[in-house]
Amino acid sequence: MHLVKLGGSVITDKAKVTTLRRTNLVRLAGEIAASGQEVIVVHGAGSFGHIKARKHRLQEGYVDDAQLPAVSEVQRDVRTLNLAVVDALRRAGLRAISLPPSAIARLDDGALRSLDIDVFRRYRDLGFTPVTFGDVVLDARRWFAICSGDLLMLALAEAFRPEAAIFVADVDGVFTADPKRAKGAKLLPTVGPGTIGAIDTAAETDDVTGGLAGKLERMIAIAGFTERCQLVNGLKKGRLLAALRGQRVVGTRVTP
Amino acid sequence: MHLVKLGGSVITDKAKVTTLRRTNLVRLAGEIAASGQEVIVVHGAGSFGHIKARKHRLQEGYVDDAQLPAVSEVQRDVRTLNLAVVDALRRAGLRAISLPPSAIARLDDGALRSLDIDVFRRYRDLGFTPVTFGDVVLDARRWFAICSGDLLMLALAEAFRPEAAIFVADVDGVFTADPKRAKGAKLLPTVGPGTIGAIDTAAETDDVTGGLAGKLERMIAIAGFTERCQLVNGLKKGRLLAALRGQRVVGTRVTP
Repeated sequence: MHLVKLGGSVITDKAKVTTLRRTNLVRLAGEIAASGQEVIVVHGAGSFGHIKARKHRLQEGYVDDAQLPAVSEVQRDVRTLNLAVVDALRRAGLRAISLPPSAIARLDDGALRSLDIDVFRRYRDLGFTPVTFGDVVLDARRWFAICSGDLLMLALAEAFRPEAAIFVADVDGVFTADPKRAKGAKLLPTVGPGTIGAIDTAAETDDVTGGLAGKLERMIAIAGFTERCQLVNGLKKGRLLAALRGQRVVGTRVTP
Repeated sequence: MHLVKLGGSVITDKAKVTTLRRTNLVRLAGEIAASGQEVIVVHGAGSFGHIKARKHRLQEGYVDDAQLPAVSEVQRDVRTLNLAVVDALRRAGLRAISLPPSAIARLDDGALRSLDIDVFRRYRDLGFTPVTFGDVVLDARRWFAICSGDLLMLALAEAFRPEAAIFVADVDGVFTADPKRAKGAKLLPTVGPGTIGAIDTAAETDDVTGGLAGKLERMIAIAGFTERCQLVNGLKKGRLLAALRGQRVVGTRVTP
């Protein structure tokens, strides 16, 4: 079984609220289906979640009542994105089943306290393709909090010990510095706990789920539960498919 | 707290697949919001669920693999309807939160074995309006089965002991015979275990969730968990609002 995380920036327009990058989404759904692999799909919220979440400081948990309509609104927006992902997977021939974290996950002070793993397992055993996503979720201490797609990847990797955990991003891999800003930035074919210090993560614009440094930490943790944890560029045709087939592909492997 | 069931035939066009009756939906959402009551909303699947479910015999559970894409498709369709209901409630000023049975409920041979009541309670305690709906759900013996909105009403009534459980239908109440076919059909102001025998339910066209006889049985069971279990006509302006306010209104009261 493979875990695939479709990064929010690959399937949504980062800057425009609730705007899809539909061509990418449809192509990536096709690559997942073409691989013939059994897959659980996790997708980010992208501009369907981050923009309003940041505006209403949902990542801080409950601050005041004015946030409550925004919780309902952001959940609704990410469900719309999720329906588009489910539709793309269904059209590619997969039997996609949506499992929303706002209904099946609970956080405690921002950490994942519970996730109904059994529901993923049972749908998968029946030949369905479970799909989950970054969402606003109940939190025991903060009332609500953001449950990122990466947090879900970690919990699912721990539970399913997948053959591979593949992160689909809008860059070729992890670089020594931000490749969109620094000219001399070099792609790192592998990253692990020993090499993470060499990466300049300061330039990364932080999002509501923690930015590159937090992402790498989580990927290193995930690498402990799978033979292959890697990051590939979802804007380049065929890279996700090659990774799902276990072929050599441009990207970064993350080691535990 | 009030439980409100929006019947599928009131908010969707019974005969046309995945077609909303948007004017009704928007008005009913407005009546719920105007009542000022704390409400949990359950809605039927209507033409977003029943037509394809019947075509693929999903109410029988697993028969053959050809049903599996239909399970994914019907779940997707009812999520679309659910998003429309959530949107209508949100526009009316409520903080609607969608809780899909396909993710949080499990059946066993068609009977509800588990439903995550805690997630309803916690969202409600934070001032949100939980919304759930008729759905295709995992079933321990049949692999999948249909979980009707009425089954959810029963489980929620048992858990929350609401002030009232209000069923919003496309008729004025329960009649001695089908009012759409029999001329002499009379509205029954109350129905209970003693009077149910006097009702001619034979003419009712059965749907995938059991028709009028099954519905009345479930309403009688629900009446055991609330002071007031009633059925009102959602096509008539103001009836749901009056019922939510506890005012006298045309309809049928169901007694345990």
